[in-house]
Amino acid sequence: MNHGISSTDQAATRAAVLQANGAFYEAFSNADVAAMTELWAKHAHVACFHPAAPAVLGREAVLASFRQILRHAPPGRMRCEEAVVTVLDGTAIVTCYEGSGEQPAHLAATNVFVLEEGAWRMVHHHAGVLAKPIPRTTSSSLVN
Amino acid sequence: MNHGISSTDQAATRAAVLQANGAFYEAFSNADVAAMTELWAKHAHVACFHPAAPAVLGREAVLASFRQILRHAPPGRMRCEEAVVTVLDGTAIVTCYEGSGEQPAHLAATNVFVLEEGAWRMVHHHAGVLAKPIPRTTSSSLVN
Repeated sequence: MNHGISSTDQAATRAAVLQANGAFYEAFSNADVAAMTELWAKHAHVACFHPAAPAVLGREAVLASFRQILRHAPPGRMRCEEAVVTVLDGTAIVTCYEGSGEQPAHLAATNVFVLEEGAWRMVHHHAGVLAKPIPRTTSSSLVN
Repeated sequence: MNHGISSTDQAATRAAVLQANGAFYEAFSNADVAAMTELWAKHAHVACFHPAAPAVLGREAVLASFRQILRHAPPGRMRCEEAVVTVLDGTAIVTCYEGSGEQPAHLAATNVFVLEEGAWRMVHHHAGVLAKPIPRTTSSSLVN
């Protein structure tokens, strides 16, 4: 809702959230465990749904699941497309589609971020399998 | 993080969020369009991922999608199991599993709520298909 926050500040906030969201896909693409560890919230309780899998709850379990995934990830870029950012004061929700390499996006993702110590950190990730992959578009992000 | 908020207040907040989460499944079970309309956020931008489907963005589109779903929903209860609540000041995230009737839960759900005018209203719903259904448990909700 951002009562009383200027549109310039809102744009800066959205840009910061999109940057945090981008850092997640960058860490994924580079199989960078240290970056993945850094970007998850350190104080708030975190949770993650990997595609088609049950909930992973808590920072240690979530990071262990990513270490496992990144160790076995096929080489190639994990893309995030059509990102839409909603900022709710100190929390932000990003919806987007995820694709690997040059393939059409095959996953729908919800990423939630929380502002901790001035940084937008990931507090929740939910990736679900799409029945029909989303063709690639030229737009990389949208705001509302 | 709830700095300075007592554990009693936290428990009350989590109970209120769980009640809002329960209202969503109640509206689903009863195919109650009016209740579904009431429980979605009226000010914040809302979004929804129905199982395996692309994003539905904005209140009008989200409510239209639910009217369509509720019109064609098979009769029977939509259950929410193993709900875990995380409160981030004026936003709350619920993870849970969804099951229809007496079937094992076949969907993983992320539900995000925002505090608007004193009420916890749904701002985001993401349901993803589970590879393996989750057997029924006796616990209906958990908090962290």
